[in-house]
Amino acid sequence: MNNNQTSPENLNKLIDMIKDVDIAMMTTIDDDGSLRSRPMRTQKSGTDGILWFFTGYESGKSHEIKDNDAHVNLSYSKPSDELYVSVSGRASLTKDKQKIEELWDPTLKAWFPGGKDDPNIGLLKVTIDKAEYWDAPNSTLIHLYGM
Amino acid sequence: MNNNQTSPENLNKLIDMIKDVDIAMMTTIDDDGSLRSRPMRTQKSGTDGILWFFTGYESGKSHEIKDNDAHVNLSYSKPSDELYVSVSGRASLTKDKQKIEELWDPTLKAWFPGGKDDPNIGLLKVTIDKAEYWDAPNSTLIHLYGM
Ligand SMILES: Cc1cc2nc3c(=O)[nH]c(=O)nc-3n(C[C@H](O)[C@H](O)[C@H](O)COP(=O)(O)O)c2cc1C
Repeated sequence: MNNNQTSPENLNKLIDMIKDVDIAMMTTIDDDGSLRSRPMRTQKSGTDGILWFFTGYESGKSHEIKDNDAHVNLSYSKPSDELYVSVSGRASLTKDKQKIEELWDPTLKAWFPGGKDDPNIGLLKVTIDKAEYWDAPNSTLIHLYGM
Repeated sequence: MNNNQTSPENLNKLIDMIKDVDIAMMTTIDDDGSLRSRPMRTQKSGTDGILWFFTGYESGKSHEIKDNDAHVNLSYSKPSDELYVSVSGRASLTKDKQKIEELWDPTLKAWFPGGKDDPNIGLLKVTIDKAEYWDAPNSTLIHLYGM
């Protein structure tokens, strides 16, 4: 592995792992300080270090992210491959029409019956601060990205 | 499902799901406010609503949990079964000899080469506050335990 942890190679490796698992558990801090997680499908993971997720604009997690730049964690687990990834980042909520248009795909109708014009549709933009992964049961972690 | 969310049936159902997945991603809040997660093997999940994990007594996560009763999240994901569980709870760190003795099993030597007398061995006791699960891609969440 490259020692320069923020190298493009490492980011590409991270994106490959994320694509392989696809569904993340996204953890946020609730009003009362407790930590909650829920499964989220990764809509796009880009070489710009940004991950995109569709979300209901008025939803529990959006409420918890109402402060833009809220800390979140995304964990990607694939027990059958013994692959575990932790991504620490900041999330912000947007209704950017153009971005929704760009990222929309029809399978999302399961969550947004109104399609991409659903009044409640929103996007979570997560900027990656730090990423780590484990790929064998006895392995210690590998810092992949960030500090 | 029983409507009484803290019923013993629901706790038993939760424990069954946890046993099936075994490895949780444990999220804690770092000193700088960021959220970090790492894979942890669930050593015991009891009908008393308490989960036990072995940990290094001096470790990153122990440091983050140094305030006893720190909020943690445990996510259990099994993509192959489309099963996702979120457990919100409080963690505290202990070196309780008797409990270590009771929960120790030899496969733990991978992390604690010194065995159960390893000076750095510790236990994380997580008291469950709240649990939710999803078991199909389009399902909305099911509150399982706590409110
Ligand atoms: C499959 C798997 C299971 C693990 N289980 C544990 C565990 O039960 N206890 C533990 O302390 N570390 C376990 N680890 C290692 C942790 O993920 C982590 O690297 C280590 O505890 C140090 O984390 P920290 O610096 O955040 O404290 C496991 C790693 C993997 C890949």
